Amino acid sequence: MAKKSVLTPQSEDFPRWYQDVVAKAEMADNGPVRGTMVIRPYGYSIWERMQSEMDTRIKDAGAKNAYFPLFIPQSYLTKEADHVEGFAPELAVVTHGGGKELEEPIVVRPTSETVIGEYMAKWINSYRDLPLLLNQWANVVRWELRPRIFLRTSEFLWQEGHTAHATREDAAAYAHHIHREVYEDFMVNVLAMPVIRGRKTASERFAGAINTLALEAMMRDGKALQMGTSHELGQNFANAFGIKYLASSGTQEVCWTASWGTSTRMIGGLIMSHGDDAGLRIPPRLAPIQVLVMIVKDGDGVSEAAAAIVADLKAAGVRVELDDRTDTAFGRRAVDAELKGIPVRVEVGPRDVAEGKVTVARRIGGGKEPIAFESAAALVTRALDEDHQALYDEALAHRENNTVDVRTIGEAAEAAATGFARIPWATLGVAGEKELAASAITVRCL
Amino acid sequence: MAKKSVLTPQSEDFPRWYQDVVAKAEMADNGPVRGTMVIRPYGYSIWERMQSEMDTRIKDAGAKNAYFPLFIPQSYLTKEADHVEGFAPELAVVTHGGGKELEEPIVVRPTSETVIGEYMAKWINSYRDLPLLLNQWANVVRWELRPRIFLRTSEFLWQEGHTAHATREDAAAYAHHIHREVYEDFMVNVLAMPVIRGRKTASERFAGAINTLALEAMMRDGKALQMGTSHELGQNFANAFGIKYLASSGTQEVCWTASWGTSTRMIGGLIMSHGDDAGLRIPPRLAPIQVLVMIVKDGDGVSEAAAAIVADLKAAGVRVELDDRTDTAFGRRAVDAELKGIPVRVEVGPRDVAEGKVTVARRIGGGKEPIAFESAAALVTRALDEDHQALYDEALAHRENNTVDVRTIGEAAEAAATGFARIPWATLGVAGEKELAASAITVRCL
Ligand SMILES: [Zn+2]
Ligand SMILES: [Zn+2]
Repeated sequence: MAKKSVLTPQSEDFPRWYQDVVAKAEMADNGPVRGTMVIRPYGYSIWERMQSEMDTRIKDAGAKNAYFPLFIPQSYLTKEADHVEGFAPELAVVTHGGGKELEEPIVVRPTSETVIGEYMAKWINSYRDLPLLLNQWANVVRWELRPRIFLRTSEFLWQEGHTAHATREDAAAYAHHIHREVYEDFMVNVLAMPVIRGRKTASERFAGAINTLALEAMMRDGKALQMGTSHELGQNFANAFGIKYLASSGTQEVCWTASWGTSTRMIGGLIMSHGDDAGLRIPPRLAPIQVLVMIVKDGDGVSEAAAAIVADLKAAGVRVELDDRTDTAFGRRAVDAELKGIPVRVEVGPRDVAEGKVTVARRIGGGKEPIAFESAAALVTRALDEDHQALYDEALAHRENNTVDVRTIGEAAEAAATGFARIPWATLGVAGEKELAASAITVRCL
Repeated sequence: MAKKSVLTPQSEDFPRWYQDVVAKAEMADNGPVRGTMVIRPYGYSIWERMQSEMDTRIKDAGAKNAYFPLFIPQSYLTKEADHVEGFAPELAVVTHGGGKELEEPIVVRPTSETVIGEYMAKWINSYRDLPLLLNQWANVVRWELRPRIFLRTSEFLWQEGHTAHATREDAAAYAHHIHREVYEDFMVNVLAMPVIRGRKTASERFAGAINTLALEAMMRDGKALQMGTSHELGQNFANAFGIKYLASSGTQEVCWTASWGTSTRMIGGLIMSHGDDAGLRIPPRLAPIQVLVMIVKDGDGVSEAAAAIVADLKAAGVRVELDDRTDTAFGRRAVDAELKGIPVRVEVGPRDVAEGKVTVARRIGGGKEPIAFESAAALVTRALDEDHQALYDEALAHRENNTVDVRTIGEAAEAAATGFARIPWATLGVAGEKELAASAITVRCL
């Protein structure tokens, strides 16, 4: 008899598999207000590691973190609406505070763009203040009618970068730098995701941008997910907010700005890129727990052996945790570790100890083997290195197998039903893009 | 002629000094919605270091971070109010979302306590799930009619810990552990603040708590500021939310809970504890920039010498920054470094280089001295160590000089006008506490 699977198989119902794994791996729950989410400790520990890896790269790129308010005056977003029904449907509006109705309704930030624009205008005086490179980690709210945890939620966590520069070249170079050295580097070298780096067509660009750079990844169901964007805003944004500077020549000039963002949606992308029918597979460099040392059952010398391995791995700089909950069945704990996608498990039981060995189980490539006690730490460290690459290669092969080079718009439409289609822009063009749009196919990346 | 001071002197108008220093040191600005704040990059870098130091201690105490939603259904907070005017005046209420009026108004979290209570009840089944130790870093909103940046703002950043335990003893021990090993340790050993650790009187306790532990600090104007609290909630909270567990004996038991929090208000406390008429003084272990190496003016070998010192200090693990903005007057840059409270400045100019020395200026104890180039790194490292203690000792002496041992309620009232009064609780008692309350004096700490 086949073992009953814990999750709906991906091939049977991918969206259902996704929901199952988010719940069973204890990543997140639905919040009490529809469309919101509770990020559980395990899910949040993954987000914290994403933040820390990204934040280091953002700081290396010279940007500084700041914090702008959650609340935005109505006047910042709508110049004329006289009643709150006049707001865009994505906005949440506060009408009461301090125990009474407010004179002016307040919007919960869907982005801090407008507020940051106002303060940039205030803080920038001369060329000496440029470039001004700001980043913010915060929660934002965009009302979602069809929410999906991590992918589309009414509240999500993100980072938004906003920068002001003296020249168009400097703004463009910075937007590209973030795109490549921060975002792509993080996605490839930490998330083990082969992202396609490119720019958007004019019709897919961010409103107000003169160029939108994006990173697209293929999920295991063949669909694309946008993992991050970096926009050159030209002088559009600076003109709207009066972001000007006194040049060294003594003339007043308008700044050139850029903005860039990534969010908790990346967690959804990670799950759908690497997860399989047994659960998550967390890339080793990201994993909050890289190795779980499990006591299979108590016995002579078992906890001493487990503690020694934990100590060895810690000393080698590995993020390791001990599971000594022997009052819970071992099988159940092993399934839970598989669901959570912990890259390596080291299992220690009385028989292993008697034989001077441990069992090493690998989540990413699969397989389990007995290893001499003395060699365990070295093998585990090597496994973590190999498995980053293995996960990346597997995702890349999946994408290549599901991408077709096509020559006509008809072929493109067919290929896009199950994966990506690669077509020369000269063949497609703006007219072709419109034709594909009629079949709900978007040109994601040039 | 005396140098015109950049800030209102503390002795002239302390609240005004506070406002001045927050603005001039570029810590924060008022936000566009009254009562909110923009935390500027320098202020935020201090908050980030507070977070990181606290977070390490919180994790060492076994708690795990999670994230709960910004929005809370009205029903969680008021069981009967049929219109939003029925809400407590501290709440901000969202009545519109998705482009229309909501069926049920939503509250912007003033704390996540109620939501966390609901999910604890859901996540805890048996004794194996205990203790459940959760912490959250988030923004919260409490409408303020008389806002003061960092001290009382309508939106602020904080951490809130919520824990559930099997026994009263375990909950009490954990609340005390946080109070001492997380909060007090951080405040003394990082913030260099001599806090008074104690518990609140029954009338000053947190609603629902059976014991409230607090940390109080004396500001330079002699007033007290509460820096953090840790509450034992008994079974009150667990009963309200149905937080129960199956004991190993097989019976259903009610949990014992605790909660604990600190916020961006600590930044206000830091400013008012250590700041002087020249600006902030940031304790070295907290300082985002511990040492600023300044090029006084360009010249032969100057930038090479400055770069060498920066490299030496970096290698010694010091957080160092280079100021080579020689197109701005040196005096202005030095005043700015004083305002920002950077503990040590190393000034390098052509004359210094010619003489094989640099000038080391210390913000905390004051003073400036020429040092041989080779000895600079060692001296600076030692200065950072000494200055932590010097700052702590100075704050402690200030508190001791402004605390009087009194024997009668009349004496207590008199002493509290300019500082702290220490009185035996046996003398004061509940009746005495009421009498002092009539003169707006609170019993802060037992
Ligand atoms: Zn009303
Ligand atoms: Zn309405």
